[in-house]
Amino acid sequence: MEAAWPSRRGGVTMDAIGGQMDTITDMSTRLIRKEVDEALWAFVDRQRPGLLAISDELGPMVSALDALLSGGKRLRPAFCYWGWRGAGGPAGAPGIVTAAASLELLQASALIHDDVMDSSDTRRGQPSAHRRFEAMHREQGWPGAAAPFGAGAAILLGDLCLAWSSEMYESAALDAAGLGRGRAVYDLMRTEVMAGQYLDMLEGTRDTGTVETALRVVEYKSAKYTVERPLHLGAALAGGSTEVIESLSAYGRPLGVAFQLRDDVLGVFGDPAETGKPAGDDLREGKRTVLIALTLERADAAAAAAVRRRLGDPALDDAGVAGLRAIIEETGGLAACEAMIDRYAAEAAAALDAAPLTAEAREALGELTIAATARRV
Amino acid sequence: MEAAWPSRRGGVTMDAIGGQMDTITDMSTRLIRKEVDEALWAFVDRQRPGLLAISDELGPMVSALDALLSGGKRLRPAFCYWGWRGAGGPAGAPGIVTAAASLELLQASALIHDDVMDSSDTRRGQPSAHRRFEAMHREQGWPGAAAPFGAGAAILLGDLCLAWSSEMYESAALDAAGLGRGRAVYDLMRTEVMAGQYLDMLEGTRDTGTVETALRVVEYKSAKYTVERPLHLGAALAGGSTEVIESLSAYGRPLGVAFQLRDDVLGVFGDPAETGKPAGDDLREGKRTVLIALTLERADAAAAAAVRRRLGDPALDDAGVAGLRAIIEETGGLAACEAMIDRYAAEAAAALDAAPLTAEAREALGELTIAATARRV
Repeated sequence: MEAAWPSRRGGVTMDAIGGQMDTITDMSTRLIRKEVDEALWAFVDRQRPGLLAISDELGPMVSALDALLSGGKRLRPAFCYWGWRGAGGPAGAPGIVTAAASLELLQASALIHDDVMDSSDTRRGQPSAHRRFEAMHREQGWPGAAAPFGAGAAILLGDLCLAWSSEMYESAALDAAGLGRGRAVYDLMRTEVMAGQYLDMLEGTRDTGTVETALRVVEYKSAKYTVERPLHLGAALAGGSTEVIESLSAYGRPLGVAFQLRDDVLGVFGDPAETGKPAGDDLREGKRTVLIALTLERADAAAAAAVRRRLGDPALDDAGVAGLRAIIEETGGLAACEAMIDRYAAEAAAALDAAPLTAEAREALGELTIAATARRV
Repeated sequence: MEAAWPSRRGGVTMDAIGGQMDTITDMSTRLIRKEVDEALWAFVDRQRPGLLAISDELGPMVSALDALLSGGKRLRPAFCYWGWRGAGGPAGAPGIVTAAASLELLQASALIHDDVMDSSDTRRGQPSAHRRFEAMHREQGWPGAAAPFGAGAAILLGDLCLAWSSEMYESAALDAAGLGRGRAVYDLMRTEVMAGQYLDMLEGTRDTGTVETALRVVEYKSAKYTVERPLHLGAALAGGSTEVIESLSAYGRPLGVAFQLRDDVLGVFGDPAETGKPAGDDLREGKRTVLIALTLERADAAAAAAVRRRLGDPALDDAGVAGLRAIIEETGGLAACEAMIDRYAAEAAAALDAAPLTAEAREALGELTIAATARRV
């Protein structure tokens, strides 16, 4: 799962990176959400007529994409943009926002396909794409099975988003040399996230996960993909030096891990209003997260058996979710995961302090660090 | 389904485009298969180490891709190449073969996802990608269900192929202006084929198909995608004039329809050694092809009911397949489909005669016309 972003942040505690307390009053500036949204909708609006000209029966594809793109926190575009700025790229260039926003289409593709693979019902507080198409099939009373139709349509919509992400990237008003440098990062990132998702599936299916193997999945499936590569993409587009690129890795890698671990904790303990998914959904889906691996490492035989029995049970009810939560807390799994988040976030913050970036980018990335990893209570 | 290409062609009758008899002795030259294979394997060989460096557990992804890419007739790259040559592009440019060969990765993605959506067991004479991963899951004795693992892994492999197709295209040693012109065609083609596949699913699920609606699916899902757009891509890369592009449409559109109708006939009546699929597989999958629509148009109530009852029955046995074949022949559906193929192929041949292309390209495309549409008995 991935947490939905609250539309208005009332305050985020800073204790994840050092025990201090502070309040972020205007994260939206750092997330450049308005600019990213404008670029994203401008692209989708340009594609819409072409699709509907093929057939007006493609309307449901467009609606499903609109619904998905209405949510999401635009974290990857923000990291891309601040990678650009950090490497000295100018603030006013419109091309960078287009290139950055294209990452949302890549992410949309990954989410749509992920939800098919996990049979997830919900995404960003709404029905997942395949459930949406499934419901349409039922409402229309078409013959045949609704579920394969829903899955098939969602596979195609995810393919379309993947194709459109590169189309949008290439449409960015940036110089050809920059786009070429960025393309190498984009290519790498796509291969990494797909490889990471395969390893994640392996991890989930084999039931032999350790903290180490779960962390390897986190590295490729989400840490590099969510933070390090978007930063690199921005820096590459701006022609950042090797030193800048390396400093962004030193910051982005641990931050990406901390972000995913926070996401895993939210997936079990988070408020559905924030995560956009029913409470306990990650447990029902049987995700073999680092949090679960830390719990199993600490659990006695009876507790471990209870985790293994309940994890991945699609019929897990509220009491079952509460029972699993209790085990994750009582074994010390949760505390160990929070401690890991703190360590990785602190490592990221230290690397950021030492990074040869522009002052404004360093400040913005400092705020994103907190936003991506802080406890939300 | 899509027919596998015989590794060695013993002779193809020309009667599909005018009743003459002739033999094509060296189709492989026109298909530039050797050159396309070299470019394709060079690209995959460059990607392999990066994937395995992430984890050697990604080996099965690589093997599944290798197996799929070993088959296929490389028809799209051939049309792209001859579109280039037809528009005056030089014979010796290595970049054009790379760009053309990238279409095989796009096609691999489409086939892998199509097989998941159709639950197909076989592709190009081998197990489909999802069945391959499913078998691996079973052989390893992993806990959990094998089928969702197989489908999930295949969805990811298809995504990887789609990402790699654009990566390979962009890697072609061609000038930036040409690649930009070609990219516009590539983008359009991807959107069209995904839209066409969605319309195909709608067609299959609603059971209200007519010849007209089946032909619309053919247009986007396969005619444009297989012939017209690959020709356009090559011509755009070569900087072909509007006149050349339009003449390639006049030739490619009817040829693409004729090609798909031939493929549909082969899907029902073809030799499994040639199609790479068990006899009657298209009938078991319930494909609502033009051939089926032509049959239903001509069938009396009893025959129509028999078609509707048997079509899409996964348990359809040899007798059931033979029964459906008999109805398709006896109603005149097959003859009507053959007549349509002849008409479209003749239209393509006439357009080719009038097209302002180089003589060599016209000759090569003439041979590809026959190869793509001729009866194979």
